[in-house]
Amino acid sequence: MKHVHYTEVELEIPKEQGIKDIMIRWLISKKDGAENFAMRLFEIQPEGYTPLHQHDWEHEIFILEGNGAVRDKTSEKSFKQGDVFFISSMEWHQFANTSNKMLKIICLIPYKK
Amino acid sequence: MKHVHYTEVELEIPKEQGIKDIMIRWLISKKDGAENFAMRLFEIQPEGYTPLHQHDWEHEIFILEGNGAVRDKTSEKSFKQGDVFFISSMEWHQFANTSNKMLKIICLIPYKK
Repeated sequence: MKHVHYTEVELEIPKEQGIKDIMIRWLISKKDGAENFAMRLFEIQPEGYTPLHQHDWEHEIFILEGNGAVRDKTSEKSFKQGDVFFISSMEWHQFANTSNKMLKIICLIPYKK
Repeated sequence: MKHVHYTEVELEIPKEQGIKDIMIRWLISKKDGAENFAMRLFEIQPEGYTPLHQHDWEHEIFILEGNGAVRDKTSEKSFKQGDVFFISSMEWHQFANTSNKMLKIICLIPYKK
């Protein structure tokens, strides 16, 4: 059984293009023996954002702290703490911090078989 | 894209034996098109608990609110808000609310292929 506080997990700079002021913690991953899906936590500064992109895997997301906006290519919709998202494969999406406080997002992805 | 606040998702009584004062919300499931894993939220009253059990799938867990204790057959360890657990397949586990406030746990499980 792995048991840690999320703040004990290393804070890393993601490698993706098109991001701003984001750090990531890989809370549960293959390193822990997770073979089916991974749990990450994104910490997004005010005015920071994830890339506007699409990919052939889904996201399961829980907004842990803060407020922001989710965007696709044509629209924007605000979100708040406690909101839940299911982003299907190939859906365009971007998560942005539109507030003046830190935004923290739990985001899970599958490991492809 | 599914987007809801977690409190908008139906609060159900789990069917498992050996539980006490627990309700569950299936935040993301096959109903939403999730084919690889499901996100559930457990709301556990003071003195409530999940079953002491084992099974051949893993859990990925984030403690959203409250305090409690995780148990196996021989030991007990306390946990708090922001703690993360990876419970491997076949590991014995039980989550109990040992406080006087509600305990809220995000718990993800794989869909078996």
